[in-house]
Order: sequence, then structure tokens, then C-alpha cells
Amino acid sequence: MKGYFITFEGGEGSGKSSAILEIQKYIEQLGLKVITTREPGGIKISEQIRNVILDVDNTDMAYETEALLYAASRVQHLKEKVVPALEKGYVVLCDRYIDSSIAYQGYARGLGVEAILGINMFALKYMPDVTYFIDVKPDIALKRLNGREKVDRLDLEKIDFHNRVYSGYMEACKLYPSRIISIDGTQNLEKIISSICENIKERMMENGIIKG
Amino acid sequence: MKGYFITFEGGEGSGKSSAILEIQKYIEQLGLKVITTREPGGIKISEQIRNVILDVDNTDMAYETEALLYAASRVQHLKEKVVPALEKGYVVLCDRYIDSSIAYQGYARGLGVEAILGINMFALKYMPDVTYFIDVKPDIALKRLNGREKVDRLDLEKIDFHNRVYSGYMEACKLYPSRIISIDGTQNLEKIISSICENIKERMMENGIIKG
Repeated sequence: MKGYFITFEGGEGSGKSSAILEIQKYIEQLGLKVITTREPGGIKISEQIRNVILDVDNTDMAYETEALLYAASRVQHLKEKVVPALEKGYVVLCDRYIDSSIAYQGYARGLGVEAILGINMFALKYMPDVTYFIDVKPDIALKRLNGREKVDRLDLEKIDFHNRVYSGYMEACKLYPSRIISIDGTQNLEKIISSICENIKERMMENGIIKG
Repeated sequence: MKGYFITFEGGEGSGKSSAILEIQKYIEQLGLKVITTREPGGIKISEQIRNVILDVDNTDMAYETEALLYAASRVQHLKEKVVPALEKGYVVLCDRYIDSSIAYQGYARGLGVEAILGINMFALKYMPDVTYFIDVKPDIALKRLNGREKVDRLDLEKIDFHNRVYSGYMEACKLYPSRIISIDGTQNLEKIISSICENIKERMMENGIIKG
């Protein structure tokens, strides 16, 4: 495929979404066609699936069902939006992809990495060219999100969950050392953005997508 | 688990559903607790998922998405209905299970058996104790369904699809020779039912569930 597939990963409060907006502008300035998306990405079938996952009455949903629904929503978004854009030569920036499932369903929900890779088998055929993981430990990210230093009991419960998510990301980094690039997320946002943009530019030059 | 998990497989017109009703009565006469089910089996989440699959407007649904949604519906039905019944000691008769996905999605839709087993990884932990495959070739089954001998162009297209389903079942039988028992489906329904009932009785005796 002619395009270039870039995904962004990180826990809550990692600054990921703000960073992506600026990175999109940078890639446009390089003279490349670029789209930004995230699952379900406005794809009707994926939205319908997401509604089943998020239905507050579905308290009996098994973690396995949830993980399969995320995988279903992903493959539809991929086939209907991501792959066609790549085929047209777009750079595709996707906010979260399979590594989120490894971290959230595989680790935090305890289903295991092997199961997540198994049920995401169809997406494995379309792995990102590169993934930027914005690495911030959950206690720091949570303080950022709260805008305060004090941490209460509910925050601690959340931290426990997000620590498992973080461990999942560490595992994904070990599994895919050449694809996933870890970015120090304790830096300020401008620094995070410029590190990623520099790395993207290098890759685009290496791959002959842009000239030096 | 204390119960006994029996699944039934076969193409359209194999007489499967009619047979199951009689087999349920037979198992009750053996003095055992028995329930009959089929996916989505009245499970709310599984029904919601099925509605997404069957939504006539979802013409863009990828085969991969469809297969993942079937797997999601299956695991929820399994965890909410089948496993609890097995844990209470019920004999569970299930009309179609994972072999249907091998035949329909894996073969007829061309996704491949390996992919179907991968995405159904959670269900593989709860494989049936025995599966009865009612073996009728599609041309014979179709004549039965139509109640007529003549076959038109549309029937031929259907036959092509159902031939692929049939090949998928043949492959499933090869993969699981000890679990899947093939029953000659060209026999009359009474004979099909009595063959299956005899085999169930033998198994129940061998497993010490009933006495001879």
C-alpha cells in the first residue's frame, strides 16, 4: 500500500489526543495527504457495535464479549476507512489501535496477550508502520487529569487499573520493539510533539516518501 | 463441570431442529435435566449483537466483522446461559456452535479455519462433549426444503454456497474426529433420531451419568 499508517498509544492523561492534532498539521506542512481517525471513526457499523459495548444496561457483558466487540469494531473501521485511505496514499494517524487492546483487555481485564492477538488476527494483517507510545506513569497522568496533587480512595482504585494498563503497554513495547517507539511523556507537550515530528520526518525520508 | 454439552450441526434442510426436540424428550425420559438452546438464545447482549449482524442496511459489513460478531454473541450466550446450566448439572443441547462458524465463515465465506479458531479462542475452552453432524449433501437437502425435484438458477447459486458449507463441515469432521459424530442424514427422521439417542445413551452410561 502506498500510504503510511501511524498509531498513537498511551493511558488517560498522556496528552496523546492534543499531540495528534499538531502532528497532523506538521505532516500537512511536509506536503503530504493526511487523515486523523480513531475507532469507531464515524463508521456506522462500528458505531452500532460501540453502542452495544457502552450500553449502561449491559452490566452482564463478559470481558471476552467486550474484547471481541472491540475487535469487530476495529476490523470494520480498518476495512471501511483506514485501508482505503492508505490505498489512496494518505498518511493515516490513528488514535489507539491494537496495542490498546493488549493493554486494556489483555492486561487490565486479564484476558492475556495471546487471546487478544488471536481475536485480532484480521487486524494483524494491517499493522502500523510505526506506533508512538507516550509513556507517562499513571500516578503522574492522573494528577495532570485532575489538575490537583491530592489523591483520594477512588483515584487509588483507578490507579490500580491504570497501573495494569501501563504494564500491558510495557509488554506491548517488548513484543514489538521495532514498531513501537516510546516517547517520554513527562516532557512538556511541545517537546513530545517535536520528538514525534522529527522521528516521522526521518522515517518519511528513509522510506523515500519525502526528500531531505 | 457436572453437566453434559451436546451440539448439533448440519446445513439447511438437514432436519436438525426437528431432531433436537425429540432428543430432548428422550433425555428427559432418561431422568436427566436438559435444556435446549441456540445462539443468541434469548440473551439480551447476544440479541443486540445479532441485530447488528442482521441489519439489512449493513451491506458494507466485512466478512471478518461478521465472524467476530458471531464469536462475540457466542461467548456471551455461553457464559450467561450454557456454562451456568452445565454447572448446575444440566444436559445442554445446543443447535449450532463453533463448527457452524468453521463451515459458514471459515469455508463458505473463505476466512479460513485457522482464523475462525483464533477468534473463537474463548469458546474453545468450552468445547462440546459430543457433536452430532447430520450429514446430507446440499442438493438432496435443497430438494427436501423446496418439496420439489426441479432446481432453478437461483437454487444452483445457493447450492454452490451450501457446497462450500458442506466442505467446511467435512473439514471440521477431520479436525475433530473424536468429538464429531457423523449421522447419515439421508435416513428418515425417526432413524436419525434413534441413532443419536442410542449414541447418547451409550455415552451417558460410559460416563456414569446413568446406569445401564
